[in-house]
Amino acid sequence: MHTLGEIATYIDAKLIGDASIEINSLASSANAQKNQLTYISKRKYRTDLLTSKASAVILDQDLVNDCPTNALVVDNVHLAFAKISHYFKQQSTHLNGIHTSAVINSNNIANNCTIAENVVIGQNCRIASGTVIEANVVIGNNANIQANVTILQGTTIGNNAVISAGSVIGSEGFGNALDDQGHWYSIAHLGNVVIGDDVNIGANTVIDRGTLEDTQIQNGVHLDNLVHIAHNVILGEHAAIAAGVTVGGSAVLGKYCQIGGGTVIASHMHLDDGTIVTGSSTVDKHLSKGHYTGFTSISPHSDWKRSQLWLLKLDKIISHLNIKLKHLKGS
Amino acid sequence: MHTLGEIATYIDAKLIGDASIEINSLASSANAQKNQLTYISKRKYRTDLLTSKASAVILDQDLVNDCPTNALVVDNVHLAFAKISHYFKQQSTHLNGIHTSAVINSNNIANNCTIAENVVIGQNCRIASGTVIEANVVIGNNANIQANVTILQGTTIGNNAVISAGSVIGSEGFGNALDDQGHWYSIAHLGNVVIGDDVNIGANTVIDRGTLEDTQIQNGVHLDNLVHIAHNVILGEHAAIAAGVTVGGSAVLGKYCQIGGGTVIASHMHLDDGTIVTGSSTVDKHLSKGHYTGFTSISPHSDWKRSQLWLLKLDKIISHLNIKLKHLKGS
Amino acid sequence: MHTLGEIATYIDAKLIGDASIEINSLASSANAQKNQLTYISKRKYRTDLLTSKASAVILDQDLVNDCPTNALVVDNVHLAFAKISHYFKQQSTHLNGIHTSAVINSNNIANNCTIAENVVIGQNCRIASGTVIEANVVIGNNANIQANVTILQGTTIGNNAVISAGSVIGSEGFGNALDDQGHWYSIAHLGNVVIGDDVNIGANTVIDRGTLEDTQIQNGVHLDNLVHIAHNVILGEHAAIAAGVTVGGSAVLGKYCQIGGGTVIASHMHLDDGTIVTGSSTVDKHLSKGHYTGFTSISPHSDWKRSQLWLLKLDKIISHLNIKLKHLKGS
Repeated sequence: MHTLGEIATYIDAKLIGDASIEINSLASSANAQKNQLTYISKRKYRTDLLTSKASAVILDQDLVNDCPTNALVVDNVHLAFAKISHYFKQQSTHLNGIHTSAVINSNNIANNCTIAENVVIGQNCRIASGTVIEANVVIGNNANIQANVTILQGTTIGNNAVISAGSVIGSEGFGNALDDQGHWYSIAHLGNVVIGDDVNIGANTVIDRGTLEDTQIQNGVHLDNLVHIAHNVILGEHAAIAAGVTVGGSAVLGKYCQIGGGTVIASHMHLDDGTIVTGSSTVDKHLSKGHYTGFTSISPHSDWKRSQLWLLKLDKIISHLNIKLKHLKGS
Repeated sequence: MHTLGEIATYIDAKLIGDASIEINSLASSANAQKNQLTYISKRKYRTDLLTSKASAVILDQDLVNDCPTNALVVDNVHLAFAKISHYFKQQSTHLNGIHTSAVINSNNIANNCTIAENVVIGQNCRIASGTVIEANVVIGNNANIQANVTILQGTTIGNNAVISAGSVIGSEGFGNALDDQGHWYSIAHLGNVVIGDDVNIGANTVIDRGTLEDTQIQNGVHLDNLVHIAHNVILGEHAAIAAGVTVGGSAVLGKYCQIGGGTVIASHMHLDDGTIVTGSSTVDKHLSKGHYTGFTSISPHSDWKRSQLWLLKLDKIISHLNIKLKHLKGS
Repeated sequence: MHTLGEIATYIDAKLIGDASIEINSLASSANAQKNQLTYISKRKYRTDLLTSKASAVILDQDLVNDCPTNALVVDNVHLAFAKISHYFKQQSTHLNGIHTSAVINSNNIANNCTIAENVVIGQNCRIASGTVIEANVVIGNNANIQANVTILQGTTIGNNAVISAGSVIGSEGFGNALDDQGHWYSIAHLGNVVIGDDVNIGANTVIDRGTLEDTQIQNGVHLDNLVHIAHNVILGEHAAIAAGVTVGGSAVLGKYCQIGGGTVIASHMHLDDGTIVTGSSTVDKHLSKGHYTGFTSISPHSDWKRSQLWLLKLDKIISHLNIKLKHLKGS
């Protein structure tokens, strides 16, 4: 718990309002409640600002007059948010063995695991050697967690989970603010990862925690190896994602989506329920239900080279042909 | 060992034949022998069925009359196979330290390793800290196995192997059956990974075990970091695969293939001996010996945007030009 | 320390010069000094040879007459270099616990770490469970090194580093020489990884050491998850690379570059300061400052199929149209 005055000092903001009110956490502008702090970085979110229930808002001079509550005025809102996020981040402190506060209802746990404060593990779980489970993780029944897995603080996992060797669940998202010298300032991600029942996760796959809300892996999702799931992503029930797929931040996949191996899904894309994407595609558009593809089909190297040259000068060639045609018509 | 009657009950199949015969394992229709169970999921494999030496076959009503042996009749053959695969899966049970049954002929083994039942490790091997080796793994002489590697049950590794940090060998394949509600049901992979002599494996690379037969990494293969090798893949001798490559299930690469970094090879593709693929390509065809490429060459963002628009309306433009030409000709 | 005569015997070279001189290390032709050995594998590097300060050079018969110093003459220079590289490689030998020679100025170190000979760790560092740090690694102050990380020998890391779970720093580069039977012979990488201040590294990311010089990750660089950084790469200050990016060997990225997720950067590419690359692109050219893109935009599967067919026969269609036009003009 910090007063707004302390926070203003920490991020070097001009405080307009009550310095003594207490802030206990950060939240998005849409979800923030009493005693929470939010931020508005762009004029287009002005409506969110007007209706926000947050006790205070970080914003710039441009939006001060629209602020219905306490304001922290700064030049670079995103950077101020990045700084204050670290103020609210709590690090798992336990480093060795099984913490006395952990509640473990299974016998099949390797000695060589680290299980931290307040972890709860259900019945009939198997946790192999080298696995590290940080504070406040909750795991349901019948989990099969293989070797050298890392599950970071606050992750929730339902029943019947399979988590393959080397995977990392709950890593920091890749959200960074730029300061005025072009230096990156990482955002401490305060959301968690929430995983439903009957989820399978492949080897060396990584799932990042959310920025303020949670990254969601819903019931029945199957992920293959070396998959990247970025912060704030929502994977709908029974989605299947093959190996080597990169899912960008805040992407939302509906239920029953099938994504082929090596595909890249850009940040913020939405895929409707039942969308199928061929492997190795680049999803650079929102997709409604259907089957989509986007890559260059392989061909002999010399053919490929020629076709790429044609591709880039296509507009010139076509316009040239059209001019020729006009001339002929006119002749 | 289970009787066919027990299996029929487990997967809720109608048994036609002898309920008392004993089934000791699963096998593909081509390789199954006496006391083995196989499955035929599609009419096109009917010839395999007719000649199968399996003691029993899971199939659907459509193929019952072609079955030369005991039959387990179900509606969803693939799902029934997925269910019964778990019945035959044996999990490595050892969780801590070095099992007394392990035979280790090297001294350079970190204390902080887990080595399970019946593992055999040859002479002059170095195994670094955090590495986990499951039951029945066999490793030849002169292996250099770095830190935090996971080698799952039944993997065989020849002489002179280098396995870099964080790699996972023998993880489950991403084979899943769909039930009639669109839910995925994972197949327990009963094949192993077989690695020849003089094989180098990079860091955080993953090699899945086979479904029923083995995934094969033949002599002299070199794999870079963050490579995915799916279930049932065969990598021919002295193939070299650079970083970030995704090789789909059942792909077969001949000897001396060279695959550039970031390439995606679709499932079931066959590449002849000596095939070279430029990095970042998508291999969506079988390839005979040669040099192949398939990606979009980079260009300034605005040029790229225009060329992609042209690409998608190319057929309309060309047909439009042809019509104009015809009109001119006719005029 | 080895005499040139010993080395000549080891790689089966014809020695022209003084067999008794002592060689203490390998170096590139440009950087080699007294008591160092280098190699010249192609005629185009002849100028480097003429001015080299190395005490000896591995080369083939073709370049012997241009050699200003002691020569080791072989048929396959690259292969000879690969062989001798292993001669100079020193392996971290410590396997268990914290070596007595390690200097650790922080308390927050998990028991379950391995920290080898001569490691130096600064103040206020946190090192989580399962992490393995090999010989001669130097880590500055305030490092947050998460679970199951592997840092290989000789890596240098500045202040304020964040290294996420499962990452591998200092793995061998994927440099291999071919012998005359088409077999790969790995090069032992003798360079290190040098990481500046304020660097963030994501989960399950891999950074390879340099061949002879060091791989460089300069101040303020932020890397996301599952990124591959190959040997000899230089990432300029404050570069940001999103998840799933593959950076090929010897690529050089200037300061402030931003690389979107899933991009592949080919070996030896140079990107100027401030270059921006959209995610999922293939960087197959040197890039000057600007915004670049290169991938196939996604579309419905049938549209994609048609456009790919058109793309490959584009040159034929255009030349056909031109011929028709000529005929018309002529008519």
